[in-house]
Amino acid sequence: MARRRGRDRRLAEDAAPAALPPRQIVNRHAKLALMSDDQVAAIHAASLRILETTGVVFREERAIAAFQKAGASVDGERVRLDGDLIDTALATAPDTYTMTARAPGFDVTVGGDHLAVMPAGGAPFIYDLDRQRRPGNLNDLAMLVKLAHLSPAINVVGRKMIEAQDVPPPTRHLPCWQTCLTLSSKPVQSGFVHGGYEARDVIEMLAIVFGGEDAVRTTPRAQTNVNVNSPLLFDRAMTEALMVFAEWGQPVQVSPFVMAGVSGPSTMAGALAQHNAEILAGVVLTQLIRPGTPVLYGSATSNVDLRSGAPAIGSPESAFAVAASTQLARFHGLPSRAGGALTDSPVPDLQSACERAMTLTTTVLSGVNFIMHGAGILESYLTVSPAQFLMDCEMLDSLAVMTGVLEVNDDTLALDAIDAVGPGGMFLASEHTQSRFRDVHFLPDIAVRQGYEQWEAEGSRDALDRAEDHCRVLLESYVEPNMDDAIRAELEAFVARRQDEIMGGVQ
Amino acid sequence: MARRRGRDRRLAEDAAPAALPPRQIVNRHAKLALMSDDQVAAIHAASLRILETTGVVFREERAIAAFQKAGASVDGERVRLDGDLIDTALATAPDTYTMTARAPGFDVTVGGDHLAVMPAGGAPFIYDLDRQRRPGNLNDLAMLVKLAHLSPAINVVGRKMIEAQDVPPPTRHLPCWQTCLTLSSKPVQSGFVHGGYEARDVIEMLAIVFGGEDAVRTTPRAQTNVNVNSPLLFDRAMTEALMVFAEWGQPVQVSPFVMAGVSGPSTMAGALAQHNAEILAGVVLTQLIRPGTPVLYGSATSNVDLRSGAPAIGSPESAFAVAASTQLARFHGLPSRAGGALTDSPVPDLQSACERAMTLTTTVLSGVNFIMHGAGILESYLTVSPAQFLMDCEMLDSLAVMTGVLEVNDDTLALDAIDAVGPGGMFLASEHTQSRFRDVHFLPDIAVRQGYEQWEAEGSRDALDRAEDHCRVLLESYVEPNMDDAIRAELEAFVARRQDEIMGGVQ
Repeated sequence: MARRRGRDRRLAEDAAPAALPPRQIVNRHAKLALMSDDQVAAIHAASLRILETTGVVFREERAIAAFQKAGASVDGERVRLDGDLIDTALATAPDTYTMTARAPGFDVTVGGDHLAVMPAGGAPFIYDLDRQRRPGNLNDLAMLVKLAHLSPAINVVGRKMIEAQDVPPPTRHLPCWQTCLTLSSKPVQSGFVHGGYEARDVIEMLAIVFGGEDAVRTTPRAQTNVNVNSPLLFDRAMTEALMVFAEWGQPVQVSPFVMAGVSGPSTMAGALAQHNAEILAGVVLTQLIRPGTPVLYGSATSNVDLRSGAPAIGSPESAFAVAASTQLARFHGLPSRAGGALTDSPVPDLQSACERAMTLTTTVLSGVNFIMHGAGILESYLTVSPAQFLMDCEMLDSLAVMTGVLEVNDDTLALDAIDAVGPGGMFLASEHTQSRFRDVHFLPDIAVRQGYEQWEAEGSRDALDRAEDHCRVLLESYVEPNMDDAIRAELEAFVARRQDEIMGGVQ
Repeated sequence: MARRRGRDRRLAEDAAPAALPPRQIVNRHAKLALMSDDQVAAIHAASLRILETTGVVFREERAIAAFQKAGASVDGERVRLDGDLIDTALATAPDTYTMTARAPGFDVTVGGDHLAVMPAGGAPFIYDLDRQRRPGNLNDLAMLVKLAHLSPAINVVGRKMIEAQDVPPPTRHLPCWQTCLTLSSKPVQSGFVHGGYEARDVIEMLAIVFGGEDAVRTTPRAQTNVNVNSPLLFDRAMTEALMVFAEWGQPVQVSPFVMAGVSGPSTMAGALAQHNAEILAGVVLTQLIRPGTPVLYGSATSNVDLRSGAPAIGSPESAFAVAASTQLARFHGLPSRAGGALTDSPVPDLQSACERAMTLTTTVLSGVNFIMHGAGILESYLTVSPAQFLMDCEMLDSLAVMTGVLEVNDDTLALDAIDAVGPGGMFLASEHTQSRFRDVHFLPDIAVRQGYEQWEAEGSRDALDRAEDHCRVLLESYVEPNMDDAIRAELEAFVARRQDEIMGGVQ
């Protein structure tokens, strides 16, 4: 099993100038497969029929032109694709890629057996440390970036971990990306809902941070999420962002938002067929723009509660879709994004914890390569809780140990120790145990194993209380990573200039 | 996906005289495998060396005599076994068995792809609906038997779901088994810590309920758990109970209690090698007593927190051991018991929910055949919470849906509906959705998906509040299953007579 540090060691190291280096879960075990190979093939065949017959709408002229040039059947905004175009695109899309960070040890591998985790994306509300749910702001984002930077379980920072509602939407990307790029050394992801100008601004900011345009053009540095307006529609802003990132060779994640029963069929087979068709259409566009562009097979597919029409992301159908989408991604040879710690509960409670743990365990065992909602999400993506963020990091640490490769050798099989202790004996005092007791097992920071009386004697503080305590202590230990003063100043000047331009009407 | 009833329908049916029939999860998907085949073989080879070299102690003369007669090497209470004795036993132990219940529809299959769930076993404390932790009593047991009877996710009643501390230990088995046998139609399991007389009393009670001794001798009706006093020791009471149940052909579960670092090596490879050796020794004894006796490959193997020596059953090492033990059981062709909804948290809180969901999800995906701690456990097995019992049942329902076989056919692929709705359309009002909306997705009883504002408007009741409400409503709906008056009277007379005899010194 992998070995983990305990509470004392973590806090001591967190107080040091640099954050603990992140670690990625590597899933070398057999991956979960809830569908048969025949079912995977049948769903893909249905997707090809959808792409050929119904087609997909792209609300962007350059995209339409690119499809037309490649030989797709184009009818206004509607594009119909055949299997050859799909196969050609899948042949150039890589199965693995690396995002290179601005500090050593912070690079992120996406694909193969590797899992990269980002905490959250798109939540308008925060459930804060005073247990208030309120609109998020730029300070909240900064706090979450610090937590993400400090947590070894987190690999990628989400610029939309919380929506900074105190910044006007058209310029929000500027201070938010600045916050992410300066307060953490970890690569950043975001979607772009206002159009290609946001994506181009970000490319320029990356060029400032990484030392010029070539340093971006030649190496993945950040990532964008492209949500499909399911069913079968790519809107202008998302399509523009896809194309800008693809032109620069930056990874693109194509994520249908199939809510079975609303934006897709209620039956999971049909929902997955549509989802697969939508992703493949997006994959084709990335490879038409620049062959070899890293593209993630994304999924936010789940269902709705058909009693009310409300989304159900903590549902068993959602967890099933995570496993199924990941099987489909493997079938295509593409890296996968799906799942995370998902819940529909409006507050951190037993429901939120049950649903998050069930979906997160399924996600890790499925062999997903990228989690976009791995820590802190509540209320069907609408809210983020920093305390639950840390509990989810502890779950990720725990799942890393559970799925770590077992060491089997003479030393770990311990036959001499078993014989020496003998029937009815005790291992606690044995040399075999004593020489290992500090690091042989996972030691959690938040979870307790002390029994009721001891817990009561220590003040009856439940897991949410303890997670909030831990959050405050961790944030106290935060130290901003180094950044060259000239770069910092250039970034600041760029943000100020673009804010003025955009508010003045120049995108 | 399997289809589930909603809140309204469940409550209506629960109000009917009979409980909803239980359903078993059937795991037809590929099972989780966290160890390689080579690792499984290496652990088994190490176990054979432990059995040959170190051996196992049995504190019971008839067991020792049986081993000696079979050709094992016997040295006082210590028995050393070779691979041939193991192989002979494994050849006659069945891979699947059925416990036949006293009412149709309540039979339980253990083995193959089937999962049977029992709620809990051995908890001395209850965390009750007034949120008090206190010693359990016979009324608490009756309440939990009613909940188990009413919950379709539960297949087997545990006579020790709570320890009835208001009954003297030597006679406790009598009113407790009477409670289980009369208040539920589901098969019952218990361990026997006071010796073979308890097991013999229970066989007599089963004979009363099922219509004579032959009805027991020819058919599994109940089950016993035999805990090994790890390392490598079977005490007198457990060994006696094993032998009584084996003589009567009733299923025996052999469960080591390897806490890595205390009652086994701290390294998981060694802990599993010892655990596997202990189970195989127990399996041999069952088959020496009566070849063909159903025997479960049990596991309560986990670790301890080496900072304090406290058990850690909600740990990643515990979840890993569930998956690993289940792989070993499959390797031997034996049905498996492991895992459940496990936690070390002293109260129902976010920790308890996270740990339970992580271990339960891993348990189901591992393809375990029998869960002994599937609903309600807190505080490392010490406490049971009825509210969490129902939340765990909802998780089991949810996992049944998630792992249910996907239906892939023209109807569920829904290509016509996708084409008719078209890009940018809505499925909610389509005939394909409307004709299915009542039963296509899982509809939880306790979890909500309503968003924060609605939740606040409805009184801000969290999941624990709602689970407690549901518990009260469900118990209101309970109706005792039918039992012939003569049988009921005979059972009562037997319990009264045996209580007098035992308290008078006659076991």
